[in-house]
Amino acid sequence: MSTEDDLLARVALTWFAEPGTRSVYALVDRLGPAGALELLLDGGAPEEWLRAAVAARSGEADARDVAAEALARTERAGARIVTPDDEEWPPGVDSLRDMVLPSRERRVDRETAPPLCLWVRGGWPLREALDRAVSVVGARAATPYGLHVATELGYGLADRDWTVVSGGAYGIDAAAHRGALNAGGLTVAVLACGIDRPYPSGNAALFDRIAETGLLVSEWMPGAEPHRPRFLIRNRVIAAATRGTVLVEAAARSGATQTLNRALAAGRYAMVVPGPVTSAMSVGAHEVLREQPSARLVTGVPHVLEEVGRIGVDLAPLARAARHPRDLLDDEATLVLEALPRRGATGVDRLAARAGVDVRTALRKLSLLEELGLVRRRDDGYALVAQPARPAGAPPDPPP
Amino acid sequence: MSTEDDLLARVALTWFAEPGTRSVYALVDRLGPAGALELLLDGGAPEEWLRAAVAARSGEADARDVAAEALARTERAGARIVTPDDEEWPPGVDSLRDMVLPSRERRVDRETAPPLCLWVRGGWPLREALDRAVSVVGARAATPYGLHVATELGYGLADRDWTVVSGGAYGIDAAAHRGALNAGGLTVAVLACGIDRPYPSGNAALFDRIAETGLLVSEWMPGAEPHRPRFLIRNRVIAAATRGTVLVEAAARSGATQTLNRALAAGRYAMVVPGPVTSAMSVGAHEVLREQPSARLVTGVPHVLEEVGRIGVDLAPLARAARHPRDLLDDEATLVLEALPRRGATGVDRLAARAGVDVRTALRKLSLLEELGLVRRRDDGYALVAQPARPAGAPPDPPP
Repeated sequence: MSTEDDLLARVALTWFAEPGTRSVYALVDRLGPAGALELLLDGGAPEEWLRAAVAARSGEADARDVAAEALARTERAGARIVTPDDEEWPPGVDSLRDMVLPSRERRVDRETAPPLCLWVRGGWPLREALDRAVSVVGARAATPYGLHVATELGYGLADRDWTVVSGGAYGIDAAAHRGALNAGGLTVAVLACGIDRPYPSGNAALFDRIAETGLLVSEWMPGAEPHRPRFLIRNRVIAAATRGTVLVEAAARSGATQTLNRALAAGRYAMVVPGPVTSAMSVGAHEVLREQPSARLVTGVPHVLEEVGRIGVDLAPLARAARHPRDLLDDEATLVLEALPRRGATGVDRLAARAGVDVRTALRKLSLLEELGLVRRRDDGYALVAQPARPAGAPPDPPP
Repeated sequence: MSTEDDLLARVALTWFAEPGTRSVYALVDRLGPAGALELLLDGGAPEEWLRAAVAARSGEADARDVAAEALARTERAGARIVTPDDEEWPPGVDSLRDMVLPSRERRVDRETAPPLCLWVRGGWPLREALDRAVSVVGARAATPYGLHVATELGYGLADRDWTVVSGGAYGIDAAAHRGALNAGGLTVAVLACGIDRPYPSGNAALFDRIAETGLLVSEWMPGAEPHRPRFLIRNRVIAAATRGTVLVEAAARSGATQTLNRALAAGRYAMVVPGPVTSAMSVGAHEVLREQPSARLVTGVPHVLEEVGRIGVDLAPLARAARHPRDLLDDEATLVLEALPRRGATGVDRLAARAGVDVRTALRKLSLLEELGLVRRRDDGYALVAQPARPAGAPPDPPP
């Protein structure tokens, strides 16, 4: 069998059965693409529904003709087909071989195998583009809050040289892609239809921008329509091709939460951005955080990098409020500080008594407080130094 | 020793050392309140700082006189003192005996013992009021979002006959109390100062409303000032006296998150309401959710009741989007449905071929689809029935 035969066979096989079909993938594994195609054309598929599908499709057209036409159409679209034999094949998607979905999703478990081939449009080698990649997915009917967060994530990740992967849909997907583009970064749209007619057509200008500097990717041949089940099939590629997936907004029981399940099932990081509990578009996000102990709450790029980044390469400082000298005090020092009068000064004996500590301790703590600039010694004793206001949320000072 | 002696001794002991002081609590445990007081007055305290505190305070006034004055002042304030010997003593706070704070909070671990006595203002028996109780705590500098959520929680919990406990502060605390009051429910404010001068004074009207129908509670004698460390000492009572604590809004490293740590340390449910990641007042809440695996994300009363409620008594339905007939379909039924033309009808043979299923399966699935009202049989074949729009967030339908 020539490589050309194998390529044709892979394309023909995606026409007979949806990409990800486990039984077809197993046949290719065993017999090679051309051998698997031959077996199917001879009526030797292992499952009845597959034999029926092959028979029905074969009645419509010759599989090899369809594949040849798809190759020509790929070239006309300025695209290429990447297979596991190519150097630019992204190794991440092969982890789908072992992916097992949670039992409530078994009805689609038939279609979770790795892709047989990928259509790619854009200049970057696919493998390189996906080497440091994070997916950002979420609702189409996103709120201004979600769009803001997704744009910031897309921008911030791209700005740190991470590739931003999403599905090219309206809402969160588009915002993430746009954020990455605005940062001059790399973004990849994984489609559920042919790359010559990316869906939705309202994002046509966005798709063109993505193809210019990033990549459009699909498992379906040119001309393929975005049938509803294909979005779910596609989602496993978004999940497996990247180091982690961030869910930004999702309604209850939405498709975006299923991408996160696929990320977990593929051994990837699953991250969720929370939102106002008053927003219907965050219900799905909060559901995942409640029900998936492995999903991590993230609030921005630093948290995402904390998950997916490599130590020493991608640093993510923790969110920290400005430190106040008072936060450095131990119990006794706090007691001494609190015992000082609001106005005027007081002697060490009286201070120790009010603080409930012995005099030696009071003196030790007073010298610490002096060093921190909280207290100063005067002729008539020790006095408070006026302090800047506490940050919001700290316990209140005593009333005057 | 008479009960009156013991009562006086408990009051005097809270004057010598802050409530919660472990060594004092241990003395009371061993010698009884009057015996413990006698030991301290004789200079027999086990720790140097405590001996110094007793000596210093004794130089200011006679402890028994101070206690007698506190009793008189308690009566003038229309309040009462409740001790572990009373029937209305709330058993929850005694779990503080075994509370161990996480190591980063050890500096205050000296003051985590159960209260020696509680000042109470209001008609309800304290124990009964706290029998079914949830704490709602959070930032003073709350946002409109946080105030809305806290009010709803307070209202909803009170409406379901749960007592709402909080600290009487501005912001989240006050909103939770008000929500409960508006529902005609029971609310308890646990103060960090004397109940005759509840802090902050800007909430005076609120405190009066609480005392009329609910309770004001404090570990400090009348006239005690709300010194800063007292808020932290007080928080352990809020945490331990209720079945769980809900954190609504908190800035980074804020005091409210420490109440949640105390709830966890006391074996209570710790719950956190998330918020927009763009809000500084939710940073602390998100920190807790990221760092405390035992803290549970909650979005409203149903989730809270799911944690603290008893099965069969407090029902909490899960958030669920409206079910769509399509969600009931298995894979093959979905394939058949998707294979139907947008307009017009088609025969079963062609349908089966397009769907990639055998004819028998197609017929079986078509009759299911008919039953669900998604498909109808016509003279010229099978046709789609027009459907209402999908809920937001579901995968898109194929383009026309």
